[in-house]
Amino acid sequence: MTHRRDQGEPGDFPQGMIWLVGAGPGDPELLTRKAERLIKAASVIFYDALVGPDILALTDPSIRLVPVGKRSGRHSKDQQSIDRLIVQAALAGERVVRLKGGDPAIFGRAAEELNAARHAGVPVRICPGITAASAAAASLGTSLTLRGFARKLTYVTAHARAGEALTLDWAALADPDATLAVYMGKAAAGEIANSLIAAGLPSSTPVAMVENASLPDQLTLRTNLGLLALAARSALGDGPAILLIGEALRNPTRGALTAEYSREETATLLAR
Amino acid sequence: MTHRRDQGEPGDFPQGMIWLVGAGPGDPELLTRKAERLIKAASVIFYDALVGPDILALTDPSIRLVPVGKRSGRHSKDQQSIDRLIVQAALAGERVVRLKGGDPAIFGRAAEELNAARHAGVPVRICPGITAASAAAASLGTSLTLRGFARKLTYVTAHARAGEALTLDWAALADPDATLAVYMGKAAAGEIANSLIAAGLPSSTPVAMVENASLPDQLTLRTNLGLLALAARSALGDGPAILLIGEALRNPTRGALTAEYSREETATLLAR
Repeated sequence: MTHRRDQGEPGDFPQGMIWLVGAGPGDPELLTRKAERLIKAASVIFYDALVGPDILALTDPSIRLVPVGKRSGRHSKDQQSIDRLIVQAALAGERVVRLKGGDPAIFGRAAEELNAARHAGVPVRICPGITAASAAAASLGTSLTLRGFARKLTYVTAHARAGEALTLDWAALADPDATLAVYMGKAAAGEIANSLIAAGLPSSTPVAMVENASLPDQLTLRTNLGLLALAARSALGDGPAILLIGEALRNPTRGALTAEYSREETATLLAR
Repeated sequence: MTHRRDQGEPGDFPQGMIWLVGAGPGDPELLTRKAERLIKAASVIFYDALVGPDILALTDPSIRLVPVGKRSGRHSKDQQSIDRLIVQAALAGERVVRLKGGDPAIFGRAAEELNAARHAGVPVRICPGITAASAAAASLGTSLTLRGFARKLTYVTAHARAGEALTLDWAALADPDATLAVYMGKAAAGEIANSLIAAGLPSSTPVAMVENASLPDQLTLRTNLGLLALAARSALGDGPAILLIGEALRNPTRGALTAEYSREETATLLAR
């Protein structure tokens, strides 16, 4: 079906409608102009734990803000409760924003909420957001792709269903001509590094780990695949972290990658 | 190296600096708030052909706007000219924005411009943008990932160096549990479909092609891998197009995929 899109004009948010809105990585400046408009036009906002107070502060005090935060570890019942909440609010005539960290279409459980809304006959649309990989690359000042030799960019999540092992096709992911972004990759960093090396990726492959990308408490750590397990344990934050793996992450302005540890950090590593 | 990021405050754009800014897919509402601030603070903006007039209209009339548009087909000499232009402007004391379609870090030739700036000692940073895959998914009202069975998302570009064949690892890309986004994928749609089917992806795999994602003249076409070659030829636009391939693109609110063609479109297809 070939058709023209309906325009994103103010008339695009009537009562009884749901917008799934990407809040981006956390920095309120990395909201899109459209997301800002929609959160200001909403009558109720159901927001994730990853959406920070600086973003919610952009809304009018009269807007009802409902936390539906899931941190990793809880399951589908929670998701079903969220599905019900947003649909019920829309059926009650609210202008509903479901505000999600990053981009709703990338590891954002958007499919469940879209299906719930459509099943109930509630109009639902998506406003995209800056995903963590883009935010992390920008913070690092690096491209995720390199013409000629990092021509493929792959996103996976290391957040398995509770109780399930991390089942990824490591042979397909261990591509020296690609950049791999692993969302929620910190806890499994050692397993990821070992699996990629076992599948043939050189242990010298550059890695950057970025926690709380774009936020004031962002932490970045540059290392390589062989040192990743050790390095990830040295990172002290507990926010969501993304791993970026591949030659595109090689820092052209630095020498040996290990030189990026400060003296104190090296001492900390050696003391473990 | 673990460190805190410098904040994105107004002081982040002194004279003599370059920002590589993602303009997003085209809709001015899909600029980030930060991108809007930076293009308003610039003294000169070097912009791509894919950056539309509605975005440039946000800037002050006093800002110098320099088109450095490359459409597909030209080469590295053009890129080197752009590198020189932006560095020379920064060295002359300008506040330089290099405004690029989508996200500078994704198929945006950012590495070349970052390297040129750093080599010349010019401070350079990246402001991320909404990439075409996110914009297309939002327009389609679909998630690019599905918990449990579309857990991997891969971006490739079908834009080979001039004169070179499209060399992609089709075996790795033909993953039924992944979503594949092919940037600049329209011209090679038939080759892509045949290669993926030959590598084992079912011809019933859903495909969406989105041209000029987010713009008023956006065109979308839903089909499947087996029909993609035929369907892509029926699409009449000549803007940049992205292919989204995988089970995540199956439209749950529709019946048979071919039913998404209108009667006129089907007639057009059959007449070819």
